[in-house]
Amino acid sequence: MTMLPDRALAVPTRDEIFTAHEGGKLGTALTSPLRDAHDLSVAYTPGVAEVSRAIAADPGLSARYTWANRLVAVVSDGTAVLGLGDIGPRAALPVMEGKAALFKTFGGLDSIPIVLDTTDVDEIVETLVRLRPSFGAVNLEDVSAPRCFELERRLIEALDCPVMHDDQHGTAIVLLAALRGAAEVQGRDLAPLRVVISGAGAAGVACARILRAAGITDITVLDSRGIIVPGRAGVTGEKALLAAETNPRGLTGGPAEALEGADVFVGLSCAKLPEELLASMAPDAMVFALSNPDPEVHPDVAARYASIVATGRSDFPNQINNVLAFPGVFRGALDAGARRITEAMKLAAAEAIFEVAREDLAPDRIVPSPFDPRVAPAVSRAVAEASVTE
Amino acid sequence: MTMLPDRALAVPTRDEIFTAHEGGKLGTALTSPLRDAHDLSVAYTPGVAEVSRAIAADPGLSARYTWANRLVAVVSDGTAVLGLGDIGPRAALPVMEGKAALFKTFGGLDSIPIVLDTTDVDEIVETLVRLRPSFGAVNLEDVSAPRCFELERRLIEALDCPVMHDDQHGTAIVLLAALRGAAEVQGRDLAPLRVVISGAGAAGVACARILRAAGITDITVLDSRGIIVPGRAGVTGEKALLAAETNPRGLTGGPAEALEGADVFVGLSCAKLPEELLASMAPDAMVFALSNPDPEVHPDVAARYASIVATGRSDFPNQINNVLAFPGVFRGALDAGARRITEAMKLAAAEAIFEVAREDLAPDRIVPSPFDPRVAPAVSRAVAEASVTE
Repeated sequence: MTMLPDRALAVPTRDEIFTAHEGGKLGTALTSPLRDAHDLSVAYTPGVAEVSRAIAADPGLSARYTWANRLVAVVSDGTAVLGLGDIGPRAALPVMEGKAALFKTFGGLDSIPIVLDTTDVDEIVETLVRLRPSFGAVNLEDVSAPRCFELERRLIEALDCPVMHDDQHGTAIVLLAALRGAAEVQGRDLAPLRVVISGAGAAGVACARILRAAGITDITVLDSRGIIVPGRAGVTGEKALLAAETNPRGLTGGPAEALEGADVFVGLSCAKLPEELLASMAPDAMVFALSNPDPEVHPDVAARYASIVATGRSDFPNQINNVLAFPGVFRGALDAGARRITEAMKLAAAEAIFEVAREDLAPDRIVPSPFDPRVAPAVSRAVAEASVTE
Repeated sequence: MTMLPDRALAVPTRDEIFTAHEGGKLGTALTSPLRDAHDLSVAYTPGVAEVSRAIAADPGLSARYTWANRLVAVVSDGTAVLGLGDIGPRAALPVMEGKAALFKTFGGLDSIPIVLDTTDVDEIVETLVRLRPSFGAVNLEDVSAPRCFELERRLIEALDCPVMHDDQHGTAIVLLAALRGAAEVQGRDLAPLRVVISGAGAAGVACARILRAAGITDITVLDSRGIIVPGRAGVTGEKALLAAETNPRGLTGGPAEALEGADVFVGLSCAKLPEELLASMAPDAMVFALSNPDPEVHPDVAARYASIVATGRSDFPNQINNVLAFPGVFRGALDAGARRITEAMKLAAAEAIFEVAREDLAPDRIVPSPFDPRVAPAVSRAVAEASVTE
């Protein structure tokens, strides 16, 4: 397995990075310029009063005559930022600006970073309820587990618009698409695969859920204390739900017990995957070592034992990158006027990504490139259709 | 007095207005495009982690490496929108988008509309405190009196960044600049002028305050029940403070008593100014009939008695338009890193607008055109200097 001959390989220098961030990465723009007093009287007083009066009479018109209905609030409290942890809202802001840049570039959607100086779930929900008329959807980002599960659930209840915690579902959607691609390359079905997920944080929980929804029954989830089983110490809340839904063979123990004979390894924690455990997996194993920037196992090592290897990095093949999912998911939900992002819409998104990859599948091309221009429109269309069907 | 031969005169049609508002008037833009995986690794992972880590170590760096420090939150609860009143946050949003468009066009500042689904002062303050890391300044807009006074005061206390209620201070700054221009045209001093202000809402109170700060002592303020004097029914809160600071000759009664012999009328309510009262003003009177879209008196009627006439309308000369002030005021405050917008900064802004007008003063040119490109930079410079001097 060789590194891709790409400009991506030129690791950006500190200087290049900080220069690119001077003054931030985002700005606002007018949809049409204000050139003279006439433009002013259309876009501002007195003209705008007509539009305000119309919306006051029929609130539904705000969807048509304001930017809010298609605006994504990228919301974070800065508690679980990239691999950096709880660095606070100010330090999280460059990441949220980057996310907004991705929404614009890949989904053609406007979005604004909302970084919050509170980590209290009640307060975050209350704040977004008050801000509700200002936006059309919420992309939750970099909120720590297990708070993120309660926060997402509460926001979905409280807000009549699409809400999605991307660290959970964006990752899950792309993982499922990649697993579909990998299985197709090998000519195997998904359902009988034995899957081990290492990590029971935001992404681990969501990946387990979407793989179950896609028909996989034999899923074992590990956290730092070993296999998650009902009644084990530390298995509470979301993990208790997960324990009840997974591990049908009732395994106990740690990574060694989980991995023996497994078909698929999904790494979503920083825990390393030792070579001897890799060797204990079933033939034609698939390894998704998704920790960033340091995968659970180096792809070259993984390739000695597994026939499909994927990482989260752009400098190796098979990059499992959320950007394949979230721009199209939100775009599709907003296009369809959906109030929720449902399980069916997430499954449809994964299927759409897979269908794009399918045209040119290979062991090192199980997902499309993040820059493949077909992806976001395909995902968006599929999500909108799934929304309407429901 | 004739209407200006301008494209502004072509009153925009309903069709033109609604077409221009389709999808809203604002969007987001990237400061530099994401063309490939390398750009992605600079603006998003892994590059952005360097910037986040640097800000986590030194929070002051967020001013330099994010957009928030120069971002104005245009905040409204929709309770006093234009002349439309309490139409709610959704119907207010087109106005806030328009305001954001003006910030960008005239001040080169990015801004985002924040429309709130609460009118409770405590809740609004609490919400903006939680959002604090997301923006660099707050432009309060279209909040009803008397709540607006308490809200602005509380926000100034709670937030370590510039906060200004534009309906109060933007109007006051431009009025003072216009009065300076009018007095200069007539070769008179400001201080001895007898001023009557009709309206004790947000703008009326702020205008009385700034004129006092500029050295005018004889100011009489009217509300719908007549002259504001201590102890009168309805004279509480902000009006009680105003009663103590104004009306030095102890006038009682209504518009007739106030206007007899007055030099300046400032109309900031919808109350009409009858012709016979106009006739009772002193020679060389100045009439600022600022209600929009219907001035307190038609400019042609006012011109029979007054030697200087100004309105809030773009289709007559001497338009008193907030856009002469707020883009430069916020730009100057942010450029200087000011934590407050002080009285000295507001006076400096008025003086700067007057200085631009001064080069070409005439009875029908007491303020610059809103499109005069010299205004915002002059205001911004003056405000920044006044901030640093303090």
